[in-house]
Amino acid sequence: MKVQVLTDVLKANQTIALGSKKVFDEKRILVLNFMSSPGAGKTLILERTVEKLKKDFNFAVIEGDVATSKDAERLARYDIPVVQITTESFGGACHLDANMVKKAMESLDLSGVQILFIENIGNLICPAGFDLGEDKKIIVLSLTEGEDKPSKYPVAFRNSDLLLINKIDLLPHLDINLELLLQNAKKVNPELSSIKLSAKSGEGFKNWIDWLVKEYYLKSKKRSPKRK
Amino acid sequence: MKVQVLTDVLKANQTIALGSKKVFDEKRILVLNFMSSPGAGKTLILERTVEKLKKDFNFAVIEGDVATSKDAERLARYDIPVVQITTESFGGACHLDANMVKKAMESLDLSGVQILFIENIGNLICPAGFDLGEDKKIIVLSLTEGEDKPSKYPVAFRNSDLLLINKIDLLPHLDINLELLLQNAKKVNPELSSIKLSAKSGEGFKNWIDWLVKEYYLKSKKRSPKRK
Repeated sequence: MKVQVLTDVLKANQTIALGSKKVFDEKRILVLNFMSSPGAGKTLILERTVEKLKKDFNFAVIEGDVATSKDAERLARYDIPVVQITTESFGGACHLDANMVKKAMESLDLSGVQILFIENIGNLICPAGFDLGEDKKIIVLSLTEGEDKPSKYPVAFRNSDLLLINKIDLLPHLDINLELLLQNAKKVNPELSSIKLSAKSGEGFKNWIDWLVKEYYLKSKKRSPKRK
Repeated sequence: MKVQVLTDVLKANQTIALGSKKVFDEKRILVLNFMSSPGAGKTLILERTVEKLKKDFNFAVIEGDVATSKDAERLARYDIPVVQITTESFGGACHLDANMVKKAMESLDLSGVQILFIENIGNLICPAGFDLGEDKKIIVLSLTEGEDKPSKYPVAFRNSDLLLINKIDLLPHLDINLELLLQNAKKVNPELSSIKLSAKSGEGFKNWIDWLVKEYYLKSKKRSPKRK
């Protein structure tokens, strides 16, 4: 019975997500859904990315948090459209769902936007099953979290397209086997690409920027979907 | 309607938790429920604690994970009773509930046990609302997660009795304002005690051990609850 309810919820979510995806595709907006544990560095990665590419691309951001609008405020400083969703009003939900994103889209001016970042709630479990209409799911893992995370939180890693291993500047100070971490990630998702970077030091950041720009051009070159 | 369902679930959970608490109290077992983000270092803290106090106390552990029994295996090496709960079979639930713990207790020999650790699922949101029959809730935060976490995940901090700030050995390598982190924690929970430590370097660990031993003696000296 509990499982049936969950299936229904996911099915309803999927329908709304597909509707949003259609809107994003028509407008040729690349939409990326960022997932991670709390404090893995999603917001700082987004800040640095917008800083670097602001002259070349029009960004918008949907921010998800249980409480506070701290992250939205950090991104709004870059003078880009930002909407904050706080799930406190949704019973403290541990993930964004397609309906929340759809509502956020209503208060977001998407005209001219080329890249939309959706920063999900800091949580490695709940967000993984809920599509939001994005093109790609990106999982951010702080190097400090340890090499066993892909095995222990398999769904998030399995459903993601790209793994960003952040805080690589801390490598000399940690007991971590980076090779084993990558192996564990490949074990749950052989298709998962990965990039090591530090949003703080800038190390490896160029690889992420290259990935992002390439994905944008792949999306923008796609034939316009047929309008019904 | 959604809120009503949640209220019913929490009410049912509370009833089971109170039943477990009665069993723990009768046996004078100190029960601690550990919550944190993924990779904050809960398991290593437990390993070091058992190592240090194994001669003086009888421990048992209930391990919660979505998938794998890696953490249970790490703790079983200390030759103490350990039970693993994986929530994959509960639809990938993002927290332990009182019923799961009650079931785990059935396969755990509690005779002679003095301290029971319950390591919750790595998640700063879902576990906070579910009592498991514990005496105290302990929130572990890795210093790398940033100073804003108490504001962004207020319920977990509000419901906890002790904050362990782990990975303090990384302080020289991080842009973090520790004072602000503690202020933010006090803002959501003025009663919250905190201890800074590193399970890796051992720094500050004595304060945690002292806290634990004191709590054990407070519990063991409590008058036996009246049996019905």
